[in-house]
Amino acid sequence: MTYCVAVNASDGLVFCSDSRTNAGPDMISTYSKMHIFELGDDRMIVLLSAGNLATTQAVLAQIEEDLDRAAGDSLRNCEKMVDVAKYVAQVSRGEQHEAGEAAGSTGVDTSASFIVGGQIEGGDPAIYLIYSAGNFISTSDETPYLQIGESKYGKPILDRIIGPDTGLEDAARCALVSMDSTIKSNATVGPPIEVLVYEADSFSAGHHIKLAEDDQYLQLLRRRWTTALEEAFSSLPSIEWERRAASLRAINDDIKL
Amino acid sequence: MTYCVAVNASDGLVFCSDSRTNAGPDMISTYSKMHIFELGDDRMIVLLSAGNLATTQAVLAQIEEDLDRAAGDSLRNCEKMVDVAKYVAQVSRGEQHEAGEAAGSTGVDTSASFIVGGQIEGGDPAIYLIYSAGNFISTSDETPYLQIGESKYGKPILDRIIGPDTGLEDAARCALVSMDSTIKSNATVGPPIEVLVYEADSFSAGHHIKLAEDDQYLQLLRRRWTTALEEAFSSLPSIEWERRAASLRAINDDIKL
Repeated sequence: MTYCVAVNASDGLVFCSDSRTNAGPDMISTYSKMHIFELGDDRMIVLLSAGNLATTQAVLAQIEEDLDRAAGDSLRNCEKMVDVAKYVAQVSRGEQHEAGEAAGSTGVDTSASFIVGGQIEGGDPAIYLIYSAGNFISTSDETPYLQIGESKYGKPILDRIIGPDTGLEDAARCALVSMDSTIKSNATVGPPIEVLVYEADSFSAGHHIKLAEDDQYLQLLRRRWTTALEEAFSSLPSIEWERRAASLRAINDDIKL
Repeated sequence: MTYCVAVNASDGLVFCSDSRTNAGPDMISTYSKMHIFELGDDRMIVLLSAGNLATTQAVLAQIEEDLDRAAGDSLRNCEKMVDVAKYVAQVSRGEQHEAGEAAGSTGVDTSASFIVGGQIEGGDPAIYLIYSAGNFISTSDETPYLQIGESKYGKPILDRIIGPDTGLEDAARCALVSMDSTIKSNATVGPPIEVLVYEADSFSAGHHIKLAEDDQYLQLLRRRWTTALEEAFSSLPSIEWERRAASLRAINDDIKL
């Protein structure tokens, strides 16, 4: 499986992806799912991919080929981010159709989904989730993040922390915690974890880091988060019956005295 | 959907269930999924149910009928908790088979799964998860909790907090947080939330509470958990580039001075 999340923060975009692919539990390998396109001073585009690896590789190959050909539709000549979403959706539909025909009745799931985000000069930074059907949605003030792949484990922390005013650095840390929670609870999602932080109007992939399993910062984050969660947990109010039991014990102690 | 979780704590058992059932988004109703059987001084059994409501009701009706008949297999004459699991699995398989035949090729999913737990005199408290196929698993020291239904959202907090030495009250609070996270992230799981805390060797359903949406304790727990999580989150270490940016800002400030 895969887990990818992207956040439309108040001052830019955050992308986060894992790197584990598996075709059955005995066929696990590592592939980056974050594909960065720095295409000059007027645009920066990031693609996160989930689903059938052969299909996502075919989609990427087609996108690269369109860029190389420098003719027809490509990431370079899309005018707006929504055009980028339409273009990627169209490439994805085409490659999924081809892979589906090739797979025939073998029962192999050849579907793929994508998150594409970035900024093109003249427009705001934007993120789109492209479903395997080829339709797509964007973020909103109420829902500033989008996820693909194994998304449920990491959703609660996003729902509690990410709001319309969340800044880039908080969004990046929250995406990392969301990813780490997923990795802890699901063996098909695994490191290295990639994080890319895009500052609005910079038109360059400013901060892009890859955290391996033994990365010092990742380990520090895990330890601190576990400790902080335990502390948060121990600060929760007692359930009523605890108070009742406590007062009962106090009465019993008084009687003993 | 449904979310139910049960924890085999160091000093007893905790059961927690939501109460929302839905057959499509415009067919939502409230049913308890926690079924308590206090059958005398030698046994206490709790059943949590998920899946097709007609099937789970049929399973419960059969269990009740077997108790009423006082002949043949029933919860009253199982010798051990593993026999209870076998018995419930057998009833479940039978009712699912019947419901499946009735549904024919309508495409309705008539499957159901259960968590059954409790204690019978002479044995330890135990919990079993009965899959829809009718096979079942129990908890272990490494995995002291079992879930059915919409289980992914609430798993990370269980994985971080619940261990082999977790006591009853912590397990109950953690189950509530796990349930609340699920409710916040998934609209098909909803209150009232039921919690039952069984103290080992008590052979009675000692603490059983039902928390409605507007329950004061539930609201306090939510507020505190949100605040505590935000505090936990803000205590996380900066990502390396933040430290770099901070030192850069300090240098710039020095220059300005």
